[in-house]
Amino acid sequence: MKFKEIVLTGDRPTGPLHLGHYVGSLLNRIALQDEYEQYIMIADLQALTDNADNPVKVRDNVIEVMLDYLSVGIDPLKTTIFVQSMIPEIAELTILYLNLVTVNRLQRNPTVKAEMQSKSYGESVPAGFLMYPVSQAADITIVKGTLVPVGEDQLPMIEQTNELVRSFNRTYGKDIFPETKALASKVGRLPGLDGKAKMGKSLGNAIFLSDDEQTLKKKVMSMFTDPGHLRVEDPGQVEGNMVFEYLDVFDTNKVKVAELKHQYRQGGLGDVKLKMYLFEVLNELLTPIRTKRAELAKNREAVLQILLSGTKKVRKVAMETMNQVRDVMHLNYE
Amino acid sequence: MKFKEIVLTGDRPTGPLHLGHYVGSLLNRIALQDEYEQYIMIADLQALTDNADNPVKVRDNVIEVMLDYLSVGIDPLKTTIFVQSMIPEIAELTILYLNLVTVNRLQRNPTVKAEMQSKSYGESVPAGFLMYPVSQAADITIVKGTLVPVGEDQLPMIEQTNELVRSFNRTYGKDIFPETKALASKVGRLPGLDGKAKMGKSLGNAIFLSDDEQTLKKKVMSMFTDPGHLRVEDPGQVEGNMVFEYLDVFDTNKVKVAELKHQYRQGGLGDVKLKMYLFEVLNELLTPIRTKRAELAKNREAVLQILLSGTKKVRKVAMETMNQVRDVMHLNYE
Repeated sequence: MKFKEIVLTGDRPTGPLHLGHYVGSLLNRIALQDEYEQYIMIADLQALTDNADNPVKVRDNVIEVMLDYLSVGIDPLKTTIFVQSMIPEIAELTILYLNLVTVNRLQRNPTVKAEMQSKSYGESVPAGFLMYPVSQAADITIVKGTLVPVGEDQLPMIEQTNELVRSFNRTYGKDIFPETKALASKVGRLPGLDGKAKMGKSLGNAIFLSDDEQTLKKKVMSMFTDPGHLRVEDPGQVEGNMVFEYLDVFDTNKVKVAELKHQYRQGGLGDVKLKMYLFEVLNELLTPIRTKRAELAKNREAVLQILLSGTKKVRKVAMETMNQVRDVMHLNYE
Repeated sequence: MKFKEIVLTGDRPTGPLHLGHYVGSLLNRIALQDEYEQYIMIADLQALTDNADNPVKVRDNVIEVMLDYLSVGIDPLKTTIFVQSMIPEIAELTILYLNLVTVNRLQRNPTVKAEMQSKSYGESVPAGFLMYPVSQAADITIVKGTLVPVGEDQLPMIEQTNELVRSFNRTYGKDIFPETKALASKVGRLPGLDGKAKMGKSLGNAIFLSDDEQTLKKKVMSMFTDPGHLRVEDPGQVEGNMVFEYLDVFDTNKVKVAELKHQYRQGGLGDVKLKMYLFEVLNELLTPIRTKRAELAKNREAVLQILLSGTKKVRKVAMETMNQVRDVMHLNYE
C-alpha cells in the first residue's frame, strides 16, 4: 500500500504554551502546514494519565492551548486540530494494540523509564502511564500519520509505534498502517529563564505566549546572566548567560547581537540595559500574538467550535481506519 | 445514588459451549433472566487477548456461542445478549480506569497470576492480558452491573472492579458507578470426561451442546470410570467414577442412581451398560437443545440480527454511562 505523508503532532493540555514550545514545535508546525496534511492533537486523555485527580485543569487548558495555536498562526484551514478524548476509535485501537506488546517491552521503553523516574512513582506506576506509548501509537496510526516531529528523547516512542505497526500488519496479513518517521525539529531545546536545561510549564522558568507585557518584563529582568558580573564596567560572560542564549534564538539582527556580546565581554554593558533590549525583542515578537490571543479569547465558544469541527473531521478518518481494522480482524459484524 | 440490580455475565467465544457451561452457568442464567435485568456479553475482544493471531476462530465462535445460548433457553426477550467489540465505550472506560490502578496492583491479581502461569507466558505477558481485569471492570460497569455470577477463582476480579469503582467515584466526586456483588453459582465445576478437575473447550474432555448423538455416545463410552473394574462381575468403585459423577448431576431420577451405585459396588453392572444409561440421560437432555440448535443454525443471519439488536440496546446504555463519565471528568466538550 502507498501512503501519503501525514504529520501528526500534539500537546498535553496541562498548561499554556511558552516560548520553548514556540521555537521547539509551533514554528515548525506553521511551516509544516504549508507542506503536508497536518493533524494536531490536544491530548487530554494522555494529560489525565498523570492528572487523573485534576480534570478541571486539563479541561481549562484545552482552550488555552487552542488560543495559543491560533494566535501564533496555526491555521485551522491548513491544520486539523482535534481533541483526543472525542475520538473513541483511539481507545479501541489502543486496546487492540495492547495484545501485540508485552508488559516487559513497555517497561523497557527508555522514555517511559526516564519519565517514571522523574515523576518518582516508585512502585506505584499507574497502568495508564506504562501504556501510554501504546496509546500514542494509536494516536498516530488512527490518522495514518507518517511524520511525527519529536525531540531525541521521544525516538523510542516512534520505535514502539513502528513495532506495533509491523506486528499488526503481519498478524492480520494486510498493510493497514504505514510506518512512521521521526521529524527531528530544527531548533534545539530552549533553556529556562533560570538557566536550567529545559523551559517547563510547571518549573516556574517559562515565558508564556499569553504573558502580558508587564509579566514579560518582570520575567526577562529575573533571567540568569553571569553571577560574576556585578558592576556595569566589569567584563561579563556570554556563555551560559540566558539573555544571550535567547538573543541568539530570537533576535534576527545578528550583527547587533555580536556587538552586544563584544561589549558585554569587554565590560561596560549592564545587565539591566541588556535585558531591556531582550525585552524589546521578545515584546515585538509576542505583541501581535498577544493581541490576536486577546481578540480570540473574547469568543471562546468560537474557538471551541474550531476544535470541534477539526475533531469531527478526524472522527471520520478514524472511523474509516477502524473499519479497515475491523475488516482484517474479523470484527465486522454488520 | 440508588442502583437497581443488574446481572452482567458472559463468555469468551473461543469454542462452542459444553456441559460444564450448561450446569455451571447457563442454567443459572436461565433462572436469573426471570428475576433480574440480565446482560450477557460475548467477549470477543477479551478472547483476542490470547488469540490475537487467530481472529477467525473468535469470529466463528461468536455465532456458535449465540446458537448455544438460544438453544438452551436463554431468551433474547428477557436477556440482552451483546458483543463486546461493538461497544467502543468499554474501550474508552478501560483507558480511563487504567489511570486509577497501578501496574503492581494488576500484577498481584491472583486470578491473572494463576492464568499467566497456566499459559506459561514467562516473561512475555501481553500487556492486554495483564490489563484484562480493568477491561472486565469496564464491561461490568458500563451497564452498571451489580451482580456478576462467578466461580470462586474469579472473586479477585470482582474485588478489582470494586476498587476501580470506589476510586473513580471518589476521584470524580460522584457515585456514578455501583459496587458489584459476586453471585456464587449453585453448582460446582463439572469434571472432564477424563476425570480431570475441569471440563475445558480445548482440553479434549468436553461434551459440547452441539455434539451430535453419535459423538455424544462415543464420548460417553470413553469416560473415565474405575480402572480396576475389569469384568462385569467385579465390584466397582463409584467415587471418582465420572459416569456416576455425571449421573449425580444430570439424572433427575435419584432413586435409580442410588440403585445403580449399589449394583456397581456389589459387582454385576458392566461399564458399557452403565454408560449406555448415562448416554440416554444426557441424550434426553441434549436432544431438544440439539434440535433447536439445528433449526436456528439454518438461519445464522437471523441469529446475528438478535445479537446486533441486543448490542444496539447496550450501546444506548453504554453511551449514557459514558456521558455521565464525561460530565464528571470534564470531558464534555459539546
